[in-house]
Amino acid sequence: MPRIALFPGSFDPFTTGHLDLVRRGVGLFDKLIVAIGHNSSKQRYLPLDWMQDQIAQLFADDARVAVLPYQGLTTEFARQQGARFLLRGLRNTLDFEYENAIAQGNRHLYPELETVFLSPTPALAAVSSTIIRDIHRFGGDVGALVPFALPPASGA
Amino acid sequence: MPRIALFPGSFDPFTTGHLDLVRRGVGLFDKLIVAIGHNSSKQRYLPLDWMQDQIAQLFADDARVAVLPYQGLTTEFARQQGARFLLRGLRNTLDFEYENAIAQGNRHLYPELETVFLSPTPALAAVSSTIIRDIHRFGGDVGALVPFALPPASGA
Amino acid sequence: MPRIALFPGSFDPFTTGHLDLVRRGVGLFDKLIVAIGHNSSKQRYLPLDWMQDQIAQLFADDARVAVLPYQGLTTEFARQQGARFLLRGLRNTLDFEYENAIAQGNRHLYPELETVFLSPTPALAAVSSTIIRDIHRFGGDVGALVPFALPPASGA
Amino acid sequence: MPRIALFPGSFDPFTTGHLDLVRRGVGLFDKLIVAIGHNSSKQRYLPLDWMQDQIAQLFADDARVAVLPYQGLTTEFARQQGARFLLRGLRNTLDFEYENAIAQGNRHLYPELETVFLSPTPALAAVSSTIIRDIHRFGGDVGALVPFALPPASGA
Amino acid sequence: MPRIALFPGSFDPFTTGHLDLVRRGVGLFDKLIVAIGHNSSKQRYLPLDWMQDQIAQLFADDARVAVLPYQGLTTEFARQQGARFLLRGLRNTLDFEYENAIAQGNRHLYPELETVFLSPTPALAAVSSTIIRDIHRFGGDVGALVPFALPPASGA
Amino acid sequence: MPRIALFPGSFDPFTTGHLDLVRRGVGLFDKLIVAIGHNSSKQRYLPLDWMQDQIAQLFADDARVAVLPYQGLTTEFARQQGARFLLRGLRNTLDFEYENAIAQGNRHLYPELETVFLSPTPALAAVSSTIIRDIHRFGGDVGALVPFALPPASGA
Repeated sequence: MPRIALFPGSFDPFTTGHLDLVRRGVGLFDKLIVAIGHNSSKQRYLPLDWMQDQIAQLFADDARVAVLPYQGLTTEFARQQGARFLLRGLRNTLDFEYENAIAQGNRHLYPELETVFLSPTPALAAVSSTIIRDIHRFGGDVGALVPFALPPASGA
Repeated sequence: MPRIALFPGSFDPFTTGHLDLVRRGVGLFDKLIVAIGHNSSKQRYLPLDWMQDQIAQLFADDARVAVLPYQGLTTEFARQQGARFLLRGLRNTLDFEYENAIAQGNRHLYPELETVFLSPTPALAAVSSTIIRDIHRFGGDVGALVPFALPPASGA
Repeated sequence: MPRIALFPGSFDPFTTGHLDLVRRGVGLFDKLIVAIGHNSSKQRYLPLDWMQDQIAQLFADDARVAVLPYQGLTTEFARQQGARFLLRGLRNTLDFEYENAIAQGNRHLYPELETVFLSPTPALAAVSSTIIRDIHRFGGDVGALVPFALPPASGA
Repeated sequence: MPRIALFPGSFDPFTTGHLDLVRRGVGLFDKLIVAIGHNSSKQRYLPLDWMQDQIAQLFADDARVAVLPYQGLTTEFARQQGARFLLRGLRNTLDFEYENAIAQGNRHLYPELETVFLSPTPALAAVSSTIIRDIHRFGGDVGALVPFALPPASGA
Repeated sequence: MPRIALFPGSFDPFTTGHLDLVRRGVGLFDKLIVAIGHNSSKQRYLPLDWMQDQIAQLFADDARVAVLPYQGLTTEFARQQGARFLLRGLRNTLDFEYENAIAQGNRHLYPELETVFLSPTPALAAVSSTIIRDIHRFGGDVGALVPFALPPASGA
Repeated sequence: MPRIALFPGSFDPFTTGHLDLVRRGVGLFDKLIVAIGHNSSKQRYLPLDWMQDQIAQLFADDARVAVLPYQGLTTEFARQQGARFLLRGLRNTLDFEYENAIAQGNRHLYPELETVFLSPTPALAAVSSTIIRDIHRFGGDVGALVPFALPPASGA
């Protein structure tokens, strides 16, 4: 049975920290799906299609990595994809407490799904999508934080 | 002077974790009031009246437990009810930091009111009303997380 | 080269905890700018001009302290003001994790800007602007938490 | 059935923080036993008998408070004393993680024993017996941190 | 290249929490080595050989699990065994901070070694070898915390 | 009045993380004293004189930095040196909780002494003297973690 993992997130945007995590995690699994969660009632900062395309180009040469959007429960999408693992990064104790609560909640819904945590490269650990959006919105340079060029900010 | 305690929360919904906490706490006090805080400007996921009724039924046989809604400051409602204790659960360090800040703030408003913290059963500690709403909204099964049947989700 | 520091925040309102921090920090720097960040798309609880005026009056006798509003990136305002230091308080581990992430993010934008953290007087550490707004909105007494009189709440 | 609680600790020495906790906790219980844990293989900084005497004098006027030494498992001493509650203070997240682990461990040994956590007065929260011993050992003044006079340090 | 992982620890004793972690982790790897670190200058509570034997019996039917003692640096033993992964459990934020520091330190010594963190079953998360030794030393019952019978305590 | 700061520690050994902190902190003060605390009853891993010499050589060209040993209370040595500031680094939440408790304790002994916290470069944040000693003791390479060559380990 192949080891299939989901790396779920909103990736708004995908960061160099996320890239680091995929590179660390890909050797653990036979297939790793970067799963972009979206929600029709929640406005994204960057378009879903564009982001999926950018991430897919980063891993164009690695057949083990796929990039797919999903809606609804992460556990349901994991079942549909035959994934028995979730991959998540832990940057600090806030991440740990949030991710641990979600992992325990997911066990109620899909007991065979194991959440696997990796620790990012420290120099990349402070990069969060939220901070990147705040910088980009005000015209700051996020070039070192995102592994592809972002469109210019529409103005804040 | 009877020991009266308030267990304040939005209880949207009341969970098996909350139930565990009431059962642990009830022996400490002569009367324990489950106090459902609401706020006219904030939309609930589940109706206040319905939730009050569900909780009341859980404790129908225990005269020490009452269920009441309130608006405004928790310290004011505590004074009105003659409560000198607040009961709160601590699941993790995030809870600790948030609850500790609120407890210190409450001391400015009502110095005689003591916040009493209990530690939940570990298997129930990850259950939060927020996670339950997320699961329920997308049609997931929350039967093990809530001590009564929820109405079907209205669709996300 | 004079040591100029920015103490950035939304200060909605400025609290006795903030006052304590300025008093502790002012001896470290030649000039300390209380920098009120605002954002045209985000509604304040108390008006910016009024708050700037109240804070300025607190430090009217200390030529080392200035009070200025700003918009956009904190690092940009620091550059404009010639500030090489940011001053921030750390009340608890939540503050630490949030502030550390922001400090690391700021290093990408302005590597010479150093964030300096101080620890508040414990009795003031639980005071947050959020808790103060919640108390004030419902008519509670915040006199001990804010170093000037607030206007009456408009009603919740 | 009277509500009997144990407040266990090594109390080497008993601090103003411990005193604050007893004062906050005594109203919750019908009887509160300050239980000085000792261990023949572990050297105390201050003698057990002397410490028991000092603490007893602090509460000489309050019949609800007793001071007793014990050896071995805290849960066993709780059973012997008919105590269904343990009282512990939570100063910060380290305390929370340590105390929570101990509380869960105790549940395996004595499921009916409930650990009750209170939050100390912030100004007293940083006072630990370890820090006090370090200060006292080097001749520093611990008068504000301990509610009785300590004997002079024997020299470090 | 087979995925070989080390699960390092002192296992003094191996607990039901450790057992839970091996069961969760074994599906991720082709081979999982329970690696009992020992140190000639540090006295164990339970003998190394006896413990190795007990753990080996637990996994006698699972050819993917091996149990081996080691001395010195964990990264060196990982290299010798061809392991590219370390498995560790995260029970709480203390574990996270300690384990994260060790994982970053290990990256200096063996950059290709990835530390994989799993989250234990909540009901088992509070079980630590330290707490178990404390209970056992004083004659308490640790039957639910250790997956084999311990010899009687030699007396405290 | 010149701004004099103490950077106290055992520095056993001084690390690249400590070096980073001195470089970040030196611009805040007119004089920065690296203060090596020692204790006749506690065995060092590396000799005090040798360590003082190594650190002094690192800052031989910077007249603002001095390196001095001390015994006893840090607050007493700060008074003797005319220092009104302590410099400390915060790598994670454990550091924060420990350092905050010590800073509050120091306020009782020397109220005018302000502890100033800086955040290290993330890539250096995991480096602790304890981890370095463990690696060095077993013959591992600590070249990237210590800013000078250590003598060979005496064998473990």
